[in-house]
Amino acid sequence: MTTKVTILLTGNELMNGDVIDTNSIMFANQLNDIGLGIVKKVTIADDLPLLIREIQQLSQTADILIINGGLGPTTDDLTAQALAKACNVDLHLQPQAHLHLKNWANKRNIKLNEPNLKQAHLPMGCEIVPNASGSAVGFSMRFNNCLIICTPGVPSELKHMLADEIIPTLQHLFPTNKKQSLIRLQTFGIGESSLQALVNDKLPNWPTDIDIGFRSAMPMLELKLSTECPESEKALTQWKNKLEQILGDHILAIGESKKQNVAEYLVPLLANANQTITVAESCTGGLIASQLTAIAGASAVFEAGFVTYSNNMKTKMLAVPSSTLLNHGAVSKETVIAMARGALNASKSDYVIAVSGIAGPDGGTKDKPVGSVWIAWGNKETIKTKYYCLPFPRQHFQQMVTARSLDLVRRLLINSNEAPHYDHIS
Amino acid sequence: MTTKVTILLTGNELMNGDVIDTNSIMFANQLNDIGLGIVKKVTIADDLPLLIREIQQLSQTADILIINGGLGPTTDDLTAQALAKACNVDLHLQPQAHLHLKNWANKRNIKLNEPNLKQAHLPMGCEIVPNASGSAVGFSMRFNNCLIICTPGVPSELKHMLADEIIPTLQHLFPTNKKQSLIRLQTFGIGESSLQALVNDKLPNWPTDIDIGFRSAMPMLELKLSTECPESEKALTQWKNKLEQILGDHILAIGESKKQNVAEYLVPLLANANQTITVAESCTGGLIASQLTAIAGASAVFEAGFVTYSNNMKTKMLAVPSSTLLNHGAVSKETVIAMARGALNASKSDYVIAVSGIAGPDGGTKDKPVGSVWIAWGNKETIKTKYYCLPFPRQHFQQMVTARSLDLVRRLLINSNEAPHYDHIS
Repeated sequence: MTTKVTILLTGNELMNGDVIDTNSIMFANQLNDIGLGIVKKVTIADDLPLLIREIQQLSQTADILIINGGLGPTTDDLTAQALAKACNVDLHLQPQAHLHLKNWANKRNIKLNEPNLKQAHLPMGCEIVPNASGSAVGFSMRFNNCLIICTPGVPSELKHMLADEIIPTLQHLFPTNKKQSLIRLQTFGIGESSLQALVNDKLPNWPTDIDIGFRSAMPMLELKLSTECPESEKALTQWKNKLEQILGDHILAIGESKKQNVAEYLVPLLANANQTITVAESCTGGLIASQLTAIAGASAVFEAGFVTYSNNMKTKMLAVPSSTLLNHGAVSKETVIAMARGALNASKSDYVIAVSGIAGPDGGTKDKPVGSVWIAWGNKETIKTKYYCLPFPRQHFQQMVTARSLDLVRRLLINSNEAPHYDHIS
Repeated sequence: MTTKVTILLTGNELMNGDVIDTNSIMFANQLNDIGLGIVKKVTIADDLPLLIREIQQLSQTADILIINGGLGPTTDDLTAQALAKACNVDLHLQPQAHLHLKNWANKRNIKLNEPNLKQAHLPMGCEIVPNASGSAVGFSMRFNNCLIICTPGVPSELKHMLADEIIPTLQHLFPTNKKQSLIRLQTFGIGESSLQALVNDKLPNWPTDIDIGFRSAMPMLELKLSTECPESEKALTQWKNKLEQILGDHILAIGESKKQNVAEYLVPLLANANQTITVAESCTGGLIASQLTAIAGASAVFEAGFVTYSNNMKTKMLAVPSSTLLNHGAVSKETVIAMARGALNASKSDYVIAVSGIAGPDGGTKDKPVGSVWIAWGNKETIKTKYYCLPFPRQHFQQMVTARSLDLVRRLLINSNEAPHYDHIS
């Protein structure tokens, strides 16, 4: 029988819309890696009776119940108390947790305060799960023939506790052979429904025992092919190959990837080719530069960026002729070409991106509505340009322009000779 | 009796760690506004039997069950099918949904494909909930004396459907008087446990019927004071006033705020004062500029930003003397002052931020470890500087440097004469 893992997330902030739950992702990824799947996730508020009832109920059907959150120093943190009540034991100042707190505070030159000390009052009989980075230790108990593990809500602390403590323990306690075979494809530039239509159209005999899943993580779209039949493993690779042929250079990587945007693919491509890039940004206002420089090692490929928001600064920083701005406007093919050439001259970089557009919500005209953007990209030899209309809210527009312009340079670097799907639709 | 709202979120991508659930936040905010609170959230995979069982079970105890996700065109979208099975009715091509799809496709010059058409096959007897922006309509059914409402997983579509259709309907069906009184304080610069300790220390008689909650939303921290006792409403304001005195200029706003970072507070402050700002960024690589320009109306306060990543470009774009770089290094008080003056000269802006630091993971030395940063901020008359050590992962470091430098300018603009809490700790 498959091991049943249930997650109980607690916190008013998760119920009342104040906080986004990102911890679930960590649980899922790390548990999946050892062949354990999450059957159910339940989220409730910081309410003692509710917490006690859920712990009692969920522990009846789950083999492993992981409770997340509520270990903090503040009065709304109730997990230790709830677990003690649910299991009908007392709380006590747990020596190991107390020692951990004292060390934690010493290292930081902090005097332990009353709220901190609360984090060492734990249910009698629990086992401590060390926390390498934070003040709150985790702890576990057996109850109703279920292993209950209490974990901190702070993502960075949870991450280490999971990887270093909980996963190795669970792997030992619940060894499993059943593993899903899966292949992930990281794509950019085709939407989910277009992609599904493409698959239906070009690969009508798609086998039923190979699941195809989509994960839209703006701006990327991940395709996940998976099967639970051991016999279908070979077929998995065959169908992956067929998808590859259909999708061409829309595929940025095959396999799992922690890369969240196109910049993360472009920086290593540039670094491997010993090439540098500069950016001249109007409507994206520094977003392209910041995505490039968010990546460790960016200094090898990036020396400078020009955020020229006003016309005046386009002329001053990038030598865009006033006549170009006057005759064609700031959002024009001529202006982005001049911006691109200006940035190449000023920075001596190999590649360049220049963008000028109308991010909105104001500033649109009939000819150039909100969402209009000209992108120029290339190098000393050739500058290409393209107009898109991306009528999205301001920040979404900025993200899309950034992703497409980085993708256009990526395609240049890999010598792609296919037109991206987004050229057909906008 | 209070109306019980339960949310059932469906999707493999929510279970296997592929997607972050942001829709919960929308549900919570919009339901809270009409006095409806969410009692429980359950998340399960795209698995037909599981979906059917949860719909049957949750509908037995909830007054309102909102199902989110699984309305899409792809084969892993199962909500309509599951609801039909759970309620023991058939699926049929629903005429209103079919018409909606045809209009949706016409407007976009798209030919309806088979996956799209699936979105119009709905349970017999359901009522349609219009979707203003997407291809999938919502739908509702009564079952087990529970109102079941199926909603799209795409956040932008859900947002409009909730605001325009579902909330008005629920407000009509479930009028409620019970409303929590609450006051929110938006703060920056003090951590959660320091804040709790401060409250315990300075306000030891904090009343038990006023809840204090913390929402950490990097880089902001929101405090939420709330009470459900009508008699405590006055006290709520009194205790809020006491907190205000303790927290001083760490409070950026009182009341609800959709602002997610310090830039969103700074831009209107600058605009109201008719002042402009420029930025000279090394280690933040464009992030400060991009946070400022992400805000509608930024062009009134921002003309240009200089992303000077290399030493050479600091000299070329900002006239930082080579001797300064040579004698003091790029990460030094002298360099950030020269960068700030150079940016003011080049842009003719009123205010300036200049930052230079070591974002890591490489590049640290014993004297200047990873996380070191010098910030200069001010105007033509005065440039102030400050050194911080923020030994966090690269992107977290960049976010913190950006937030602090924007906060330092904010404090200058409001003529604050108190030292921020972060000056004491780093």
